[in-house]
Amino acid sequence: MEEALAASVRPYIADVGTAKVDLDRQERCGFPEVVYCEGKSLETIENILRSLLEAGQDCFATRVAPEQGAHLQKVFAGAQYNEIARTLRIPLPAVPIPEGKVVVISAGTSDRPVAEEARVTAEWMGCVVEMIADVGVAGPHRLPAYRDRFADADAVVVVAGMEGALPSVVGGYVDCPVVGVPTSVGYGASFRGVAALLGMLNSCASNVTVVNIDSGFKGGYVAGLIARRLARARNGS
Amino acid sequence: MEEALAASVRPYIADVGTAKVDLDRQERCGFPEVVYCEGKSLETIENILRSLLEAGQDCFATRVAPEQGAHLQKVFAGAQYNEIARTLRIPLPAVPIPEGKVVVISAGTSDRPVAEEARVTAEWMGCVVEMIADVGVAGPHRLPAYRDRFADADAVVVVAGMEGALPSVVGGYVDCPVVGVPTSVGYGASFRGVAALLGMLNSCASNVTVVNIDSGFKGGYVAGLIARRLARARNGS
Amino acid sequence: MEEALAASVRPYIADVGTAKVDLDRQERCGFPEVVYCEGKSLETIENILRSLLEAGQDCFATRVAPEQGAHLQKVFAGAQYNEIARTLRIPLPAVPIPEGKVVVISAGTSDRPVAEEARVTAEWMGCVVEMIADVGVAGPHRLPAYRDRFADADAVVVVAGMEGALPSVVGGYVDCPVVGVPTSVGYGASFRGVAALLGMLNSCASNVTVVNIDSGFKGGYVAGLIARRLARARNGS
Amino acid sequence: MEEALAASVRPYIADVGTAKVDLDRQERCGFPEVVYCEGKSLETIENILRSLLEAGQDCFATRVAPEQGAHLQKVFAGAQYNEIARTLRIPLPAVPIPEGKVVVISAGTSDRPVAEEARVTAEWMGCVVEMIADVGVAGPHRLPAYRDRFADADAVVVVAGMEGALPSVVGGYVDCPVVGVPTSVGYGASFRGVAALLGMLNSCASNVTVVNIDSGFKGGYVAGLIARRLARARNGS
Amino acid sequence: MEEALAASVRPYIADVGTAKVDLDRQERCGFPEVVYCEGKSLETIENILRSLLEAGQDCFATRVAPEQGAHLQKVFAGAQYNEIARTLRIPLPAVPIPEGKVVVISAGTSDRPVAEEARVTAEWMGCVVEMIADVGVAGPHRLPAYRDRFADADAVVVVAGMEGALPSVVGGYVDCPVVGVPTSVGYGASFRGVAALLGMLNSCASNVTVVNIDSGFKGGYVAGLIARRLARARNGS
Amino acid sequence: MEEALAASVRPYIADVGTAKVDLDRQERCGFPEVVYCEGKSLETIENILRSLLEAGQDCFATRVAPEQGAHLQKVFAGAQYNEIARTLRIPLPAVPIPEGKVVVISAGTSDRPVAEEARVTAEWMGCVVEMIADVGVAGPHRLPAYRDRFADADAVVVVAGMEGALPSVVGGYVDCPVVGVPTSVGYGASFRGVAALLGMLNSCASNVTVVNIDSGFKGGYVAGLIARRLARARNGS
Amino acid sequence: MEEALAASVRPYIADVGTAKVDLDRQERCGFPEVVYCEGKSLETIENILRSLLEAGQDCFATRVAPEQGAHLQKVFAGAQYNEIARTLRIPLPAVPIPEGKVVVISAGTSDRPVAEEARVTAEWMGCVVEMIADVGVAGPHRLPAYRDRFADADAVVVVAGMEGALPSVVGGYVDCPVVGVPTSVGYGASFRGVAALLGMLNSCASNVTVVNIDSGFKGGYVAGLIARRLARARNGS
Amino acid sequence: MEEALAASVRPYIADVGTAKVDLDRQERCGFPEVVYCEGKSLETIENILRSLLEAGQDCFATRVAPEQGAHLQKVFAGAQYNEIARTLRIPLPAVPIPEGKVVVISAGTSDRPVAEEARVTAEWMGCVVEMIADVGVAGPHRLPAYRDRFADADAVVVVAGMEGALPSVVGGYVDCPVVGVPTSVGYGASFRGVAALLGMLNSCASNVTVVNIDSGFKGGYVAGLIARRLARARNGS
Repeated sequence: MEEALAASVRPYIADVGTAKVDLDRQERCGFPEVVYCEGKSLETIENILRSLLEAGQDCFATRVAPEQGAHLQKVFAGAQYNEIARTLRIPLPAVPIPEGKVVVISAGTSDRPVAEEARVTAEWMGCVVEMIADVGVAGPHRLPAYRDRFADADAVVVVAGMEGALPSVVGGYVDCPVVGVPTSVGYGASFRGVAALLGMLNSCASNVTVVNIDSGFKGGYVAGLIARRLARARNGS
Repeated sequence: MEEALAASVRPYIADVGTAKVDLDRQERCGFPEVVYCEGKSLETIENILRSLLEAGQDCFATRVAPEQGAHLQKVFAGAQYNEIARTLRIPLPAVPIPEGKVVVISAGTSDRPVAEEARVTAEWMGCVVEMIADVGVAGPHRLPAYRDRFADADAVVVVAGMEGALPSVVGGYVDCPVVGVPTSVGYGASFRGVAALLGMLNSCASNVTVVNIDSGFKGGYVAGLIARRLARARNGS
Repeated sequence: MEEALAASVRPYIADVGTAKVDLDRQERCGFPEVVYCEGKSLETIENILRSLLEAGQDCFATRVAPEQGAHLQKVFAGAQYNEIARTLRIPLPAVPIPEGKVVVISAGTSDRPVAEEARVTAEWMGCVVEMIADVGVAGPHRLPAYRDRFADADAVVVVAGMEGALPSVVGGYVDCPVVGVPTSVGYGASFRGVAALLGMLNSCASNVTVVNIDSGFKGGYVAGLIARRLARARNGS
Repeated sequence: MEEALAASVRPYIADVGTAKVDLDRQERCGFPEVVYCEGKSLETIENILRSLLEAGQDCFATRVAPEQGAHLQKVFAGAQYNEIARTLRIPLPAVPIPEGKVVVISAGTSDRPVAEEARVTAEWMGCVVEMIADVGVAGPHRLPAYRDRFADADAVVVVAGMEGALPSVVGGYVDCPVVGVPTSVGYGASFRGVAALLGMLNSCASNVTVVNIDSGFKGGYVAGLIARRLARARNGS
Repeated sequence: MEEALAASVRPYIADVGTAKVDLDRQERCGFPEVVYCEGKSLETIENILRSLLEAGQDCFATRVAPEQGAHLQKVFAGAQYNEIARTLRIPLPAVPIPEGKVVVISAGTSDRPVAEEARVTAEWMGCVVEMIADVGVAGPHRLPAYRDRFADADAVVVVAGMEGALPSVVGGYVDCPVVGVPTSVGYGASFRGVAALLGMLNSCASNVTVVNIDSGFKGGYVAGLIARRLARARNGS
Repeated sequence: MEEALAASVRPYIADVGTAKVDLDRQERCGFPEVVYCEGKSLETIENILRSLLEAGQDCFATRVAPEQGAHLQKVFAGAQYNEIARTLRIPLPAVPIPEGKVVVISAGTSDRPVAEEARVTAEWMGCVVEMIADVGVAGPHRLPAYRDRFADADAVVVVAGMEGALPSVVGGYVDCPVVGVPTSVGYGASFRGVAALLGMLNSCASNVTVVNIDSGFKGGYVAGLIARRLARARNGS
Repeated sequence: MEEALAASVRPYIADVGTAKVDLDRQERCGFPEVVYCEGKSLETIENILRSLLEAGQDCFATRVAPEQGAHLQKVFAGAQYNEIARTLRIPLPAVPIPEGKVVVISAGTSDRPVAEEARVTAEWMGCVVEMIADVGVAGPHRLPAYRDRFADADAVVVVAGMEGALPSVVGGYVDCPVVGVPTSVGYGASFRGVAALLGMLNSCASNVTVVNIDSGFKGGYVAGLIARRLARARNGS
Repeated sequence: MEEALAASVRPYIADVGTAKVDLDRQERCGFPEVVYCEGKSLETIENILRSLLEAGQDCFATRVAPEQGAHLQKVFAGAQYNEIARTLRIPLPAVPIPEGKVVVISAGTSDRPVAEEARVTAEWMGCVVEMIADVGVAGPHRLPAYRDRFADADAVVVVAGMEGALPSVVGGYVDCPVVGVPTSVGYGASFRGVAALLGMLNSCASNVTVVNIDSGFKGGYVAGLIARRLARARNGS
């Protein structure tokens, strides 16, 4: 039985030595495996991307350092590197028309790289993304001034450092899920994002969930997942 | 201008002295305000519930102690108290037919109260809820054995204490969002749920978000929100 | 020289065995010593209060347990015990007319005991105190609805647990100092007030300072000090 | 209603793409928005400063790196860069005559940059500032030796690292509010300012409040706010 | 060789089943083993005390609960129980004349049990002990007023909770070692003594060392050891 | 395929409603599932034990409260309850002859319940267990005095609270693995076992591994596993 | 007696000034002292290695920086430097034939250096080592696909960062001890390995023990010790 | 009175602008002020040293960076820089003959800089210092082998990182005070010295006190103070 199991599973794994690429993920989870590049050698990253391309999957990589990005753009034709989000994408020839609306709201201008990572991720998943930057709670009039832009979102990503209070406020304005992404922006007792993380976990708004510190990718991914599935349900697909 | 604003807002708030009930929340956020009962006097809770009932809203309360529950059932006809979840509900005469499927998976038998709180919450929101208990990672064959029950979920809530590893594993099997609820179950270096919380925040599965320790309510709420909106999109409503 | 110093200082200290009462504090710091009762024996508390009364000072005590309060009311005629704030006061015959306006704003109904301690303290210091309860950030319309009540404050105390976001929002509406008092209200990752404390310390509003968790007394004291001095400056005293 | 609100608010916000400048803050909170420069691009900073200047507001920026300072001094005529405090100011032609007295007391010579940031901030707000450096508690005679310099303060900022005990001692000598600023000075178990922060939060002196670690700006701002308002009350303005 | 070692060592150990009493300690370390009673059964404590008595050693026990103390006083004639310090002593017939001066200074009245444990311990070791209570830093005149009582100490124990600043101040007045004992007295962000512990570890006074939270015993022991050895050196013994 | 998998796995799981008992564990991991009783209802525990008994497995339960133990002894004939270790065992008629030697060494008398849990666990696994109590590092002669008793161990469990130093010292004397079990014994800055846990994790002895705080069960299990497998290898089984 | 003891022990210690090499360790603990190179000068390392070589022991060093490795390879003929594991070995002429099987399983490609350190260590101890990389829990099919490679291990080392869940899953598949090595791989709330460490300490699998963060050496050492002793027992040696 | 106090104190303070040098410390505390150089400008350090020299005091400075040391040696003739301890001393012409014996024991070779700082400090105070390096607990025979060298100490400083267990063991061998200095040596869960600090604070040896992480200076100072006073008592001075 064990051997049968192993036999049935192995074809769906591309074993490239230092990594085992999960080619079955698109089938199982809806989207292909995303490549997290921090701490991986260029050779390993290339091998993973190549095995995904060969399987006909839309490649997306995060935490790509500028030197890595420059190199990979030379190796893979059509690769797109976003230097603020530090992401790399090798799109398939036929990209689907975006549908499902994700809004990414950020508290301060310093939160931009994380917000950008969220945006690029949700776009890769086929969503339309609206960005609203620098509307933190200390200027209480700023957020409501942009309410018409986020009121109809399918999912909202809120990116904030320091006290991480913005998701709670946004959560009180919308009827869709809010994904809070705490950032390591701040100083002193922000403890590299811990204050913002705790703030979001203790949010008094019922529709707020949280992901890891600085994880713009995961914020964008979950929001993209919600929005995309909703759009498809609307379209009857 | 300021006075105009105050004037326009106050009608939507029921000011019962020690509390200000947000009657506009159902309109703005899709569901009425939920009453968190820990640390509130019976008098305050009664006042809040009464103002919600008067506004024609479906009342739901969490962290209701048994004595509180017994008292409130006497005061409000038709109130339903769940002693494991410690929730109280006063349903409206016409309850909608459940749609949207939420699955609540828990790692151990001790996680049951939190899982139950998630279940009751999602049911209050109008969802069908499936429960799968005691399928933690140490018995690696247990979760896959129930895969047919959670494969078609609209959203999954995973409740786990100790090392909090279950959401990562579940996340690898499904194509919908997974909401992790860490519990304070465990001993020693579990630090009352901190280990499980960190485990879930660092989950290598992209579709996992996290809520506060023991917050079955928030896990159920977000999953219910996702499932309900999806069901409505499917129905074209 | 040393002996001279000791000689000059000792008269201002009432040495009651287990405690040394600082009778000079009113002269030096503007208000008499306040008696913190947790962990003190009834005998010690009585001795301290008596030596303050003998020095003609307005007695105020905090963290007074109900049993302690009942006993002290019997011993000291005219003593006023507040059971929510757990404070005791033995007012002087001639109490000054209140001036200087302090506003105490609290996020949730469970924060009431701490807010009450702040209120009683500022009133003892001779201020007029306005209370606004249950206007936390998750209902974003609630705070602005009461803006006319706190806009003209001389100092604001904001009491909040959970994510502790309210001081930041209040700070953006007023031109006076805001003293944040984090409370231990919350569950899970609120860590008995740590989340709220960090939230307030990292507040992006420039006019927010912070005191210890649950320290309604200190919040009320500092706000009272600011308001009282301002009122006197206005009166030219 | 929502659109009306947005329409009424937007004119007070200068939207410079990556930032939304709150031009209404001076009206609402008494002083213009202060620009925190860490993590912002030069272009963003320039845009913010320009929109403030155009609105006729007195520009003040903190955490300005030396390179940023040098550049901004070239771009903005009259800009004053303080390299110890790392602040930049572009004063208005007509600067008000300083009034209200703030005293900044620091425990050790290594706390100087934070103390300097507090001083520059309070001066920007129109206060007279007295500096008393290196009077930490280990030399118990040092602080009293300077008592005549701080006894008449309207507000005191106390800057200290290591055990953070100085605010408690200063608090026992004055009748005005004391704002403690913990610094990250120290080694070993000072944990980059945590020891000092906890020391100040637990201060047994009633008139001590606390701001974030190394936040000389906020310490100076709150003290300046208190002193300025007091001075105006004295002047009857 | 190993067996020889075991043979040579075992006579100095009284093996009473659940405990191994170190009868050689008085010879090796100057004082007999002290019995820490928390978590030990009465039977175990009795066995340990009996084996010490049989070896002619002066018995001293700490953390003795009142019930334990009452029982042991019945079993052992002459046993002295101190209910504030929670210590028990069975003195030898010939107790040495006290020499060496230890001063125990405490910050607040709530620190008394810990201070008392320090006092009783140093007295057991044969020292003269002076107690100075309630001279915390918030009343800066109080400590100097008692300087003549502690100036000639051979060692000082300083007991303080909250911000734990007192040892630093005392350290600046004396030329002998100061042992800081942080107490768990305080609330909120004192974190059961952590704030005081960190304050003392980061003391800017060079002559301050620290022991565990609430460990009045260890504070008294080390101070007693220093004072006793000094007294003997003075006497030429 | 999925259904086939589920079908093939389910027979090995006893689904008792609130729990899924892993009947295959003995085959896969060498020993049956052990029942952790904290937080489980009596009904659930009974169901689990019954399904294990029916499968012919040797039942072992930990963290069994005294009331639970008393009840279960009535329900299951032959059940053995150990009140110090808080374990319950229902042995099979034919118990194997013990082989493989485990030594459990504890630092203080207060560590006994944890040490006892380790002992009972290793005995259940079929090992001979030697106990050596109260040989902590402060009496440096005590441990070597018993070296002949632990020198020939197949695996050693070292149970210690406070500074947790004993595993390092034992590790330097033996040529077999040492499993450190930190206990929550201690006070003040032991932080309920954190100090001991960190001490053991940082042990400079290469043969020391660590388990959770107070987890005598896991310490005994891993030591028992090592010893049992070694004994079988010696026997050629 | 003391002098006799010192005399009997000193010959087994090679005193090289800044270090005391324990030449008796191979006899006492089964393997020679391993040299930890971080923070040691080249001269000290050379002295230690030389004294080990002179005693005829198989030298093994960890945390050897590349520059250190290059230098030592010049000084010691036959020294082998592994640049991924950062280890150095100077093997004896006659190396034993490997026996005992250790399997090193790692969760992600970034965990490779730690896994490699474990591998090299166990090989130095004379074991056969199998490596299985990148089979973390998010791809739940990957680990079972390799089950035939680790099912017959004598001991398993599992190296994982982020949520550290892999040891629990592996533990459920094997009947031998599993040593978990948490790595500092991850970001945000992984807190440099704390999340993984807590995850492993709280593992619900009974056969999992834990070593320090990034301590591939200790993981490999304990697994090697278990496997080697088992192999020898099998061989009757 | 206040002015009189200030007048009487100021002559004993050398006010050099950025620093206030406490010239009275030698009189009050037995030794002159020691200059901590981290974070001070060269100019400030020079001014402080000059004012101490002018007052005829023996200058000692710690945490002196190599460049600072080189510069100061040029400015001050006779200045002695120790590059391992990073200390600088400008001795007075007539240095007292050393008396009082301090022993500095360190656990590993990496602890040397901290041990050296302790040694230099105690020598500056006029003590004879013996160094015993690399006798950590993992080699349990090493410490006893050197017992004859530390048995007659007047005070012992024990410097250790990792698990910080050495002070407990040393404490069991001596009849004088032991000052534990935790070091930041270690990796992973040593948390830069926190594990060692907690280990020492929880030491089961009664004669162990603790100073800040890496504070070789304070360890040496307190031991030197104890030894020096003891030597003087022996000499009848």
